[in-house]
Amino acid sequence: MTDHKISLTRRLRQTPFSKKVFEAGVTSFTVYNHMLLPTVFKSVEEDYHHLKNAVQVWDVACERQVEITGTDAKKLVEMLTPRDLTNLSINKCLYAPITNLSGGIINDPVFVQVDANRYWISIADSDALLWVSGIATGLALDVKISEPDVSILAIQGPLSNKLMQNVFSMDFENVKLFSMVKVPFKDTSFIVARSGFSKQGGFEIYIENAKYAEDIWDAFFEAGKSLNVAAGCPNGIERVEAGLLSYGNDMTIINNPIECGLERFCKKGIDSHTGKVKHFIGDKALNDIMQNGVTQMIRSIEIDGGPVPPCIEPWPIDHKNKIVGQITSAAYSPDFQTNVALGMISQECWNEGDQINVHTPDGIRYAIVHENSFI
Amino acid sequence: MTDHKISLTRRLRQTPFSKKVFEAGVTSFTVYNHMLLPTVFKSVEEDYHHLKNAVQVWDVACERQVEITGTDAKKLVEMLTPRDLTNLSINKCLYAPITNLSGGIINDPVFVQVDANRYWISIADSDALLWVSGIATGLALDVKISEPDVSILAIQGPLSNKLMQNVFSMDFENVKLFSMVKVPFKDTSFIVARSGFSKQGGFEIYIENAKYAEDIWDAFFEAGKSLNVAAGCPNGIERVEAGLLSYGNDMTIINNPIECGLERFCKKGIDSHTGKVKHFIGDKALNDIMQNGVTQMIRSIEIDGGPVPPCIEPWPIDHKNKIVGQITSAAYSPDFQTNVALGMISQECWNEGDQINVHTPDGIRYAIVHENSFI
Repeated sequence: MTDHKISLTRRLRQTPFSKKVFEAGVTSFTVYNHMLLPTVFKSVEEDYHHLKNAVQVWDVACERQVEITGTDAKKLVEMLTPRDLTNLSINKCLYAPITNLSGGIINDPVFVQVDANRYWISIADSDALLWVSGIATGLALDVKISEPDVSILAIQGPLSNKLMQNVFSMDFENVKLFSMVKVPFKDTSFIVARSGFSKQGGFEIYIENAKYAEDIWDAFFEAGKSLNVAAGCPNGIERVEAGLLSYGNDMTIINNPIECGLERFCKKGIDSHTGKVKHFIGDKALNDIMQNGVTQMIRSIEIDGGPVPPCIEPWPIDHKNKIVGQITSAAYSPDFQTNVALGMISQECWNEGDQINVHTPDGIRYAIVHENSFI
Repeated sequence: MTDHKISLTRRLRQTPFSKKVFEAGVTSFTVYNHMLLPTVFKSVEEDYHHLKNAVQVWDVACERQVEITGTDAKKLVEMLTPRDLTNLSINKCLYAPITNLSGGIINDPVFVQVDANRYWISIADSDALLWVSGIATGLALDVKISEPDVSILAIQGPLSNKLMQNVFSMDFENVKLFSMVKVPFKDTSFIVARSGFSKQGGFEIYIENAKYAEDIWDAFFEAGKSLNVAAGCPNGIERVEAGLLSYGNDMTIINNPIECGLERFCKKGIDSHTGKVKHFIGDKALNDIMQNGVTQMIRSIEIDGGPVPPCIEPWPIDHKNKIVGQITSAAYSPDFQTNVALGMISQECWNEGDQINVHTPDGIRYAIVHENSFI
């Protein structure tokens, strides 16, 4: 069930880095925002060890940008998320869920302020552009919404500071998480954030204008020879160890941010004019959810025994013969010598150390709930 | 470049038919509406000949439904498309593009009226649910929008009438294109349209409630033994021969319906109350486009020589050393003994018989423009 080919067509869009990715020996892909996202180069395990020990260059151009400009841009951006965006600036991007009227998660992007009246929403895997355009059209806002020619190259791994320094001749040690700086490249410059879909440390470079893509790819490989740089991609083992949620895998539109552990990103600020909490889409629903409390939460889970098969559909979780949740991502961790997993679990079993049974395709496995991620 | 694996995860959703599809020996997939869509069983060529000579059962559950109910449902549905929906009824579904304010195509779905105040929009590959929900949220309409538990099974091929008759004990000869009927199955019934993404004739069955999926799949295979029934899927050769456009391949959000040859679906009717043309999103832009005329059109194209490589990104078209368009889909046709293709071509070369050059990855090929599809 895991050895099928992908049929490539124009609809599964290539990225400005695709030629380099093919040359680097990619063996598998997934599709993300109608675009190719590499998933394996050597093997998931080899890529995993390399990511945790060296530095990788990732083609994550599939993190498309929704660009919002125009008179009402700020108003629209504020309306989209339960997060307080007061600290959003050209020096600081913010991870923030986008919710619908019911408080369901439409996407969990990073909000970027490019300049005074220009925003990029760096999205997860759903057509957030259609949601944002639909809202703007319905409200007749004075905005322009587009998908700009911006492709993210991520530098991830413990040696990422060093590699960035080699390429841009700047010191990145003091760039904090989600802080943004500008880096010069040839006749232009790019915005860079300390961010990325791993817990190994790293950066995401917003390459504006595809014509620079192959040159900057090459620059990283030339400057990284002594650092054992390699092409890589978000790693299915490492990101589960790290408890990094994947929209579409661990949470969908039927989930609210609170049960996904994102309550800290749902603290909308006070409007200085009205003195009331700022409006956002889904505020009433989310307020009710927060007042009443949730009955399920996403947890990290340790599944006993040898490597589980790939989790290609949710696996039921039971406790005392009652279904209490589901596993949505799982992988065998070489470093922890156990299966690491993520799943949504009802309150009767969501505490540290709670014991549950997971129904994998290969049989029932004993498992333990953890309140914190593995790394 | 065409032999890569697909990494299966929950995010690439399985369908209620997936178990049967795996058992039937699927070898390749694409991803469509965040869901697995089979692309090859035996080989593209073998599947092609079988589709044109017998009958196939297709898992096209990825054609997700956007369900709209509520007081304002009809109003919202009318607003979404430039097509006149006067004839939409429980007996008649309608193919109709959805446009944005600029007249760009958001999706090219089939509109279905399930009952008096309940609509399904059977969508191509974009999150139309987010667009429709965004519009409804912005306008504060009284509607409920959801993705219901409905999965389409398509029966396609010259023997499809016969296979349908064997399974449902009804005569389907007189069911016209896009007409809908109800078919009984076990303790329920399903709506069926004569429709589908091939020109071989056939039906799409809207299976409401996933619990029936495997049983109806089995029913078709039991009743189809003498008809040489097989599992199949939209075929990359046949659909290009037929000139069936694929959203994301041949047209995207930057294209308007007129240049995609869909003008006949852009004749909005007159409102009986106001006497004016009914409003829809994008009406001003589309009216301007129709008045001014378009400067490019999608055409069928015959590319000279032996089989071209897979078209995984647009191929430039030139005429007298000037770029005049691009090929977006191409395949070698065994029946026509030539390469069949679809592409967007500027007016200077869009007439029948016009001669152009296509820049394939393997070199420049001579090609001829056709105003009609191959079949």
